[in-house]
Amino acid sequence: MPDLQAIVDEIHEKLQPRLGEGKAADYIPQLAHVDPKKFGIAVIDVDGQTYKAGDADVPFSIQSVSKVFTLTLALGKHGETTWNRVGREPSGSAFNSIVQLEHEEGKPRNPFINAGAIAVSDLVLAGHTPREAIGEIVRFVRYLADDDTIAIDPEVAKSEHATGYRNFALANFMRSFNKLTHPVEHVLGVYFHHCALAMTCTQLARSGLFLAASGRNPLTGHTVVSRQRARRINALMLTCGHYDGSGDFAYRVGLPGKSGVGGGILAVAPGKASVAVWSPGLNNHGNSLLGSLALEMLAHRTGWSVFGP
Amino acid sequence: MPDLQAIVDEIHEKLQPRLGEGKAADYIPQLAHVDPKKFGIAVIDVDGQTYKAGDADVPFSIQSVSKVFTLTLALGKHGETTWNRVGREPSGSAFNSIVQLEHEEGKPRNPFINAGAIAVSDLVLAGHTPREAIGEIVRFVRYLADDDTIAIDPEVAKSEHATGYRNFALANFMRSFNKLTHPVEHVLGVYFHHCALAMTCTQLARSGLFLAASGRNPLTGHTVVSRQRARRINALMLTCGHYDGSGDFAYRVGLPGKSGVGGGILAVAPGKASVAVWSPGLNNHGNSLLGSLALEMLAHRTGWSVFGP
Amino acid sequence: MPDLQAIVDEIHEKLQPRLGEGKAADYIPQLAHVDPKKFGIAVIDVDGQTYKAGDADVPFSIQSVSKVFTLTLALGKHGETTWNRVGREPSGSAFNSIVQLEHEEGKPRNPFINAGAIAVSDLVLAGHTPREAIGEIVRFVRYLADDDTIAIDPEVAKSEHATGYRNFALANFMRSFNKLTHPVEHVLGVYFHHCALAMTCTQLARSGLFLAASGRNPLTGHTVVSRQRARRINALMLTCGHYDGSGDFAYRVGLPGKSGVGGGILAVAPGKASVAVWSPGLNNHGNSLLGSLALEMLAHRTGWSVFGP
Amino acid sequence: MPDLQAIVDEIHEKLQPRLGEGKAADYIPQLAHVDPKKFGIAVIDVDGQTYKAGDADVPFSIQSVSKVFTLTLALGKHGETTWNRVGREPSGSAFNSIVQLEHEEGKPRNPFINAGAIAVSDLVLAGHTPREAIGEIVRFVRYLADDDTIAIDPEVAKSEHATGYRNFALANFMRSFNKLTHPVEHVLGVYFHHCALAMTCTQLARSGLFLAASGRNPLTGHTVVSRQRARRINALMLTCGHYDGSGDFAYRVGLPGKSGVGGGILAVAPGKASVAVWSPGLNNHGNSLLGSLALEMLAHRTGWSVFGP
Repeated sequence: MPDLQAIVDEIHEKLQPRLGEGKAADYIPQLAHVDPKKFGIAVIDVDGQTYKAGDADVPFSIQSVSKVFTLTLALGKHGETTWNRVGREPSGSAFNSIVQLEHEEGKPRNPFINAGAIAVSDLVLAGHTPREAIGEIVRFVRYLADDDTIAIDPEVAKSEHATGYRNFALANFMRSFNKLTHPVEHVLGVYFHHCALAMTCTQLARSGLFLAASGRNPLTGHTVVSRQRARRINALMLTCGHYDGSGDFAYRVGLPGKSGVGGGILAVAPGKASVAVWSPGLNNHGNSLLGSLALEMLAHRTGWSVFGP
Repeated sequence: MPDLQAIVDEIHEKLQPRLGEGKAADYIPQLAHVDPKKFGIAVIDVDGQTYKAGDADVPFSIQSVSKVFTLTLALGKHGETTWNRVGREPSGSAFNSIVQLEHEEGKPRNPFINAGAIAVSDLVLAGHTPREAIGEIVRFVRYLADDDTIAIDPEVAKSEHATGYRNFALANFMRSFNKLTHPVEHVLGVYFHHCALAMTCTQLARSGLFLAASGRNPLTGHTVVSRQRARRINALMLTCGHYDGSGDFAYRVGLPGKSGVGGGILAVAPGKASVAVWSPGLNNHGNSLLGSLALEMLAHRTGWSVFGP
Repeated sequence: MPDLQAIVDEIHEKLQPRLGEGKAADYIPQLAHVDPKKFGIAVIDVDGQTYKAGDADVPFSIQSVSKVFTLTLALGKHGETTWNRVGREPSGSAFNSIVQLEHEEGKPRNPFINAGAIAVSDLVLAGHTPREAIGEIVRFVRYLADDDTIAIDPEVAKSEHATGYRNFALANFMRSFNKLTHPVEHVLGVYFHHCALAMTCTQLARSGLFLAASGRNPLTGHTVVSRQRARRINALMLTCGHYDGSGDFAYRVGLPGKSGVGGGILAVAPGKASVAVWSPGLNNHGNSLLGSLALEMLAHRTGWSVFGP
Repeated sequence: MPDLQAIVDEIHEKLQPRLGEGKAADYIPQLAHVDPKKFGIAVIDVDGQTYKAGDADVPFSIQSVSKVFTLTLALGKHGETTWNRVGREPSGSAFNSIVQLEHEEGKPRNPFINAGAIAVSDLVLAGHTPREAIGEIVRFVRYLADDDTIAIDPEVAKSEHATGYRNFALANFMRSFNKLTHPVEHVLGVYFHHCALAMTCTQLARSGLFLAASGRNPLTGHTVVSRQRARRINALMLTCGHYDGSGDFAYRVGLPGKSGVGGGILAVAPGKASVAVWSPGLNNHGNSLLGSLALEMLAHRTGWSVFGP
C-alpha cells in the first residue's frame, strides 16, 4: 500500500498555487458565495483508514454527487426494473440537454444526467410523500456515512427550486410522455432537496466506501448492496458520472466517479479506497477542475486506475 | 487464478443451445455467408497461457476491432496530438451517425465510431501511400500477435468499398470541414482494408495481450506502449468500444472491449488476461449477442470486472 | 366574382361522404367529445358579403387559430421589436418540438408554433395581470368580429392547463434562457385561455377579414393594422401557419392560413375574402383533413391562390 | 401599371452607396474574383416588356437559382411522383444540413436545399447519360429564355466538383439509404453543371417569366407547364426558396423567389412580372443582401406582394 497520507499531503501542496482556477457555479447565491480557494481531499481505504488534507472537514453542497445515493436507493426498492425508466448509456450531450429526451420519448439515457436523476427521484417517491422520501434519503446517507449530523441545506434547496426552470422543463417534458408517476412538484421537491445535501469530504468518502468494498461498508459492517450491484454502480459512474466529460475523466483518472456543480467529486478505487475531493472551480464540462486534477495525481501515484496496474 | 480452461469449456457448452441467435451482418456477401452457428473463445493470461474452446482457430473478419490497433499506431506516430483530430467521449448515438459531426464541425467524438476511425486512418497515412499504410497496419498486427500468417481478406475490402456509401459520406463530410489531410479515396482505402483483417480468436487475443499486461506483450517480450498508454486505450475501449451499447457492456461485463460487426469482440482484463470471442449474430446495438454473453459469464466466473473484486 | 354561395354549397355537398375522416384531437375531453362529422364553412368577401354552409354557426374551440389574433395584438403593442423575442422562419419540425429551442437558446422560430405563441403571450401580458391580458384578448377578438357574444370556454382552458405538460416544459425551458419576462404560470394562464376561445366559422371569418382587406375591417370600417402589417401577418401564416405541413398547404391551397387542433382553419385570400372552415378530424400534421381539402377545392374553384391567377 | 423603368432606375440609384455590402461567396475562385460592386436588375412584365438597370446584361453564375429549372424538368418527366423522392416542406436548418437527412432516412425536405436538388438531378438523369442530362438542362433553359447563347461555365463546374465535399457527403448519404438510383458521380456531375449555368439578369428574368404568366411564356407563346403547376412551383419558391431565410424573405418582400450563392435571385410576381437581380454580397442566410433589398423596394413600390394589394 502506498503511503496515502504522504500522497494526499503532496497533492494538497502541489495544488496550492492553482487554488481558485476554474469557474465556480453561480446560478444560486449559496454556490456563488463559496470561497473559490477551498480545497479538500479525503481518502478512506477499505480497511477503514482515513487520510485527508486541506478543507476535508468543511461541508459543501454535494449537488449531483447525491445521484449515486438516490440511484442506490432506487435500485434497492425497484431492482433491475429501474432500467425500464432510465437507460444506462453515456449521454453524449450537455448535462441538462432536453434534446435527447425528445428522441427517446422521455426516457433519460442514464441516471446521472439531470433528467435521469429526476426519474430516479420519481422512483424513490414510490409509496411516499415528498417529505417522507426526502427523509429516507437523508437517513440513507447518514447510515452510509455512519454520521447523523449530515443534513440538507434548506436555503440551497429553496434557491434550486426558485431558479430550476431547466429542471421544471425536463420534468414536465418527461411527464408529457407519461414517464413520471408523481406530480412534477413532488418529484422536483425530492430532487432539489437531495441535491442540497451538505457534506464534508470525509463524510462523502465514508458514504461511498461501500462501492469500493464490494457493497459492504467496512466501517460499520453493514452490507449495503450486493457485490454485483456495487460493480454495476461503479460501471455507471465510470461511463456516465461526469456528464460530457466522462470519457476524458476515464482517460485521465481511470476511476469511477461522480461530480457535482458544487465542486465535489466522489471517486471509487474498487478494492482499494473511496475518495472525495472538493474544489469549487469547474472546468468546461461542469466538473471540478482541481478536483479532477487531484484525482488524476492520486491515481498516478497509487496505480489505482481500473485500467491497469 | 480460476481454472480458465474449465470456465471457457463451460461457457462454450452452455451457449451451444443458443448458437445462431442474433442477426448477422449481411450488408456484404462475405459476412452474410458466414455460418451463424460459429462460436469461438480464446483467453490468454498475462503469463502467456492460452485457454480456448469452439472455433477459436477459425479466421473471421475482425472489422471494427481493428480500430484498437490503428489507434495504437496513430498514438505511436502522433502522441497526444492525436486528440486534436478526434475526441474521446462516448458518442451517445448510432455508430455511424453523421449528425454529431455537424454539431462538432467535423471532429468525431471518439476513435471507435466510424468517423473517428476514418480520422485515425488519415493519421496513419501521414507520410505514406495508402499501400504503405495498409502494409504498416498488417505488419503491426502480425508483430502484436507474433504471427506472420495474419492477412487482409481482399474480397471483404472490395465489398466494403463498393457498399460503403455511409463511410464515403462521413469522410467527405469531415473533408468539407478540412478535417482530413489526405484524399478521401486514400483514407477510405486504408480504412476499408484494416476493417477487412481476418483473424482467429487466438490471434486476436494475442494481439490484444499488451493491453492486459501494462503495454508489454509477455509472449514476445516486446514493449508495445507505455503503461500509461495501455491504461488509456483500455479506458477508451470501456467508454466507447461498443457504440451505443458501451454503457450496457460496462454494466454487464465490466471489461474494456471492442466489438466488430463480424461478431468478434476483444476484451481486456487488466493485469489478468486478453480475451477474444466470436459469434456472428449481433444484438440491436450491432455487437455480438452471444459474444457479449460469453464475456459476461467469463467476468462473472473469474471476478475480473474492473469495477470490483 | 365567382358564385361563392354555389361554391360553398358544392364543397359542403361533395364532402358529405367523407365526414368523420381524420383523427380528432382527444387529449382533453372537451375536444374528444365533439361530433367528428361536424363540418362548417364561411366565406366573407371584402365587400362584407357572407356565404356559408354546414355547421358554420356552431361554435368550436379555435385553439391555435387564436395565435393570429394574439400576434396581431403583440405587434400593436411592441411593433417590430416583437421579432427580438420570436423568429419568423418555418420550424421544420413537429409543432411542439423543444429541440429547436435548445439550438436557438430559447428563441422560438415563429409565433405560430407553441413555443412562439407562448412568447407572444408573454408580450401581450406586458403591463397587465393575466386576467387583464385575457380580457384584452377577448375584447380584441369581439372587436374584430363585431360580435360581443364571443367567449372563452372555461372548461377547455382548465383542461388545457391540467394536461399541458409539454407547454409547461416549453415555457420553463424558455424561462431558463431568460426568454420570458413574466412568471411561467401567468404566461401559460394567458396562453391556455386564448386557445380556449370558442367561435363559429362565421365569427372566425369575420375576425380575419381585416387581413384580406389590407388591414381594414370592411364590416365595421375600423382600420386594425396598416396595409404592410396585414401583408406581413399573411406572409407568416403562409410560411408557418400549418406546423410541419405548411409547405404542403401552400402547395395545395396557396392561401395564407392558420389551423388549430380543434379542426378549424382560418384562411385569407388577400383582396378577395376571409374564409373559415371547421372539421374535427386531423391529418398527420395536426391540421384539419377535410378543412384543408375544402380550402383546396375553394382555391381551385375561385382561382384565389396567391401564386397565380 | 406602375412606371417600372422609373422604379428600377430609382432602386439602382438608391443602392449605389451600398454596393459591396455583404460577403461574396469565396469557396471557389470563380466566385471569389467577381467584382463585389456589380449590381443588376431586370423586370419583364407579363406583356413581355423589359425594364432594366445596372449590370443587367452581365452574365453571372446562377448557382442554386438553376434548381427552379431542374425541378420544372423533373416534374415534367415524373409528375407528382417526384414527391416520393423529395419533400416540399421548409427545411428549418442551414441550407446544406445533413442532419435532416438522417432523421428522414435520406429523403430531403424540399427540392431547393442542396440534398433535394441532388435528388432532383437524379430524377433528371432518368434514361440519360450525365452528358445528355446536362444537355437537356441547357436546352431547356435556352428554350425558356429563348436565347441560345446561354451556357454552362466549365471552369465553375470543375471548381464546384473539386471542392464539393459537402455535396459528395450528401449524395453518398442519400445513396446509403437507397435514395439515389444513379451513381453518385453521375448525379453530382449533373448537379455541379447546372449550378454552373452563367446567365444575365435579363436572361434569368426571361427564363422565369412562365411562372409569372400561369405557365405560358408570353415572349414565345410556349406553354411550359400547366397553370396549376406554375402556382405550385411558385408556392415552393415562397416557402423554401431562400434556405433558412425563406420566412424573412416572405415577410419583407412577399414574392416567390429563389436565390443562389452567386448573388442572383429570381423572383416572381404572379400575374405581373418576372424579376431577376444580382449583387454578389450575401447576407447571413447566404442570400444576396442588396438583391433582397432591391426586391423589397420593388415590391413596396409596385404593391406586387402576393400577400395583399
